[in-house]
Amino acid sequence: MAVRLKDIARDLGVSTVTVSKVLRNRKDVGEKTRQRVLKRMEELQYKPNLIARALISGRTANVGLVVPDLLHPYFGEVAKSLGAVLREHDRALILASSEDDPELEQREIRTLINRGVDLLLISSCQRRLEGIFKVGEKQTPILLVDRTFPLLDANFVGSDDFKIGEIATLHLLETGRKCIAHIGASHLSTGHERMRGYSETLRRNNATVPQEYVLMHERFEETGIEAGRKAIQKLLKLNPRPDAIFCYNDLTAVGAIEAVLEAGLRVPEDIAIVGCGNFRYAQYLRVPLTSVDQSTEQIGRTAGEEVIRLLDDPESASRSTLIEPHLRVRESSWKPA
Amino acid sequence: MAVRLKDIARDLGVSTVTVSKVLRNRKDVGEKTRQRVLKRMEELQYKPNLIARALISGRTANVGLVVPDLLHPYFGEVAKSLGAVLREHDRALILASSEDDPELEQREIRTLINRGVDLLLISSCQRRLEGIFKVGEKQTPILLVDRTFPLLDANFVGSDDFKIGEIATLHLLETGRKCIAHIGASHLSTGHERMRGYSETLRRNNATVPQEYVLMHERFEETGIEAGRKAIQKLLKLNPRPDAIFCYNDLTAVGAIEAVLEAGLRVPEDIAIVGCGNFRYAQYLRVPLTSVDQSTEQIGRTAGEEVIRLLDDPESASRSTLIEPHLRVRESSWKPA
Repeated sequence: MAVRLKDIARDLGVSTVTVSKVLRNRKDVGEKTRQRVLKRMEELQYKPNLIARALISGRTANVGLVVPDLLHPYFGEVAKSLGAVLREHDRALILASSEDDPELEQREIRTLINRGVDLLLISSCQRRLEGIFKVGEKQTPILLVDRTFPLLDANFVGSDDFKIGEIATLHLLETGRKCIAHIGASHLSTGHERMRGYSETLRRNNATVPQEYVLMHERFEETGIEAGRKAIQKLLKLNPRPDAIFCYNDLTAVGAIEAVLEAGLRVPEDIAIVGCGNFRYAQYLRVPLTSVDQSTEQIGRTAGEEVIRLLDDPESASRSTLIEPHLRVRESSWKPA
Repeated sequence: MAVRLKDIARDLGVSTVTVSKVLRNRKDVGEKTRQRVLKRMEELQYKPNLIARALISGRTANVGLVVPDLLHPYFGEVAKSLGAVLREHDRALILASSEDDPELEQREIRTLINRGVDLLLISSCQRRLEGIFKVGEKQTPILLVDRTFPLLDANFVGSDDFKIGEIATLHLLETGRKCIAHIGASHLSTGHERMRGYSETLRRNNATVPQEYVLMHERFEETGIEAGRKAIQKLLKLNPRPDAIFCYNDLTAVGAIEAVLEAGLRVPEDIAIVGCGNFRYAQYLRVPLTSVDQSTEQIGRTAGEEVIRLLDDPESASRSTLIEPHLRVRESSWKPA
């Protein structure tokens, strides 16, 4: 006969609540008791049937996260701090990658929902909102991360992307740049807002540039470095040559720096470059990179707290939380005199 | 009443097998049929009860992976290609991070097993083998990835770490270095074998160095850059000063390069540096990094194939698969004349 929780409790003279707490790795159980319970579980080869429990409660305690790229430092950092919050609340994170492919994203969403997740976090690569909601998953609550959709009343945690464009561009203007180009990302809310922040700031400061100084690309996550390289080849043909470039993200900026140096120009003397994301290696690059820090750790933590809130109260009103960005100035845009 | 698979099949005049295939995202169903089935599922708000199915079959189709650090490029790359293979076989990957903490690792293993995984992949940070098997999970098959334990007859996929130490050291000897130091990782099979490959190669070439030229550190993944920096401070005090350093991994090498440059020395002219992992940004660093490429994509793919094999035949004999490393020479160890 299968060993039950209460058999273990009775054997040890503790309550079933205590045994259950040990099982869920709760910290409010003394270490000695924990060890006794674990020892007895092992002796009896107890295997808790969380699958059966999920069937009865309709909840799996699993939360899904779909990101465009597991290798992109941004999503790794968000997943890490998000996972830490969920762990504190006895929930597991199931990760999936869409490889920046809208169709694969739909499949992954469907797979996660079919397997049973109580909530789904999505950094979507869909071009349109309808893409996400195509597959009948309306019953599962969704929290959008990093990217949202225009006019959507959704649960969202991400950056203030308009402000990212604003502070990057303002910094370049303040350090004396006159002709600031932008390598951006089309079809993404992040890309659209960063571009708007950039354009608005140029306009307010009477520093607008012709349209050909703004290059918008698709599918940035995977191919960011290559996209940065290619954009530079186009920008260097313009007259006048831009003296600064605000790049959609750090990978694009890495490619941009490489291509500028290969063309025999200097960074930042000839062309200043600013990225976004302040990724782990920004300061160790050939030219240390000025970047807008998005506080990815805080984005992940906030997303985790929102997950807990939504699971506790699925009927609560949608909430959009924007995390404040900060500029980190390094050599790629500024050299001490 | 709940909608059943066969209701959908009957409505559309197709077999239940076909509907089931669409549900599992199988590719051997025509696109037109797929769309019809999906449309009908949506109309009927069909929600497949994979949880119930798991309860009946005893299998969840979930596979767990515990890594020491989600942010470390090595584990991100392995998870990515592993996930792709599992997806092809209708299996989901549940990721967990131990944050390089043996106790947290045990908790994560227990949580995954309690939630129901058919197999567990572990890149363990335990100091001893017993740590892994403490919590009664003997019934779940385990595949070790990247790190194994001495004398263990386990399923394992990783690098030939002895050879990593060998080719890195041989390269430094061949480029004329006389006094080669090592910054290594203690308590890990990878660190132990890389160090052995290094020492053996020095011995065979009559180039052994005193013991103080070998610095072994714990907990490398998270603090790699800092560990590299600190080790350099010790190594620069030695007489004679080392003219080359083989670093356990790329992050350590990044910290080492920074510290050497800060001390006013040149890389590679004064001190050559070789890392391991050939991470995504190796070529974009201040000094482009020579590194041993572990073919992480192949490690992940092979691990995925091993998972499928073990699930198909749990009684099969243990197998250890070592992936061949390759050296990528860049400026940190060699400058064209």
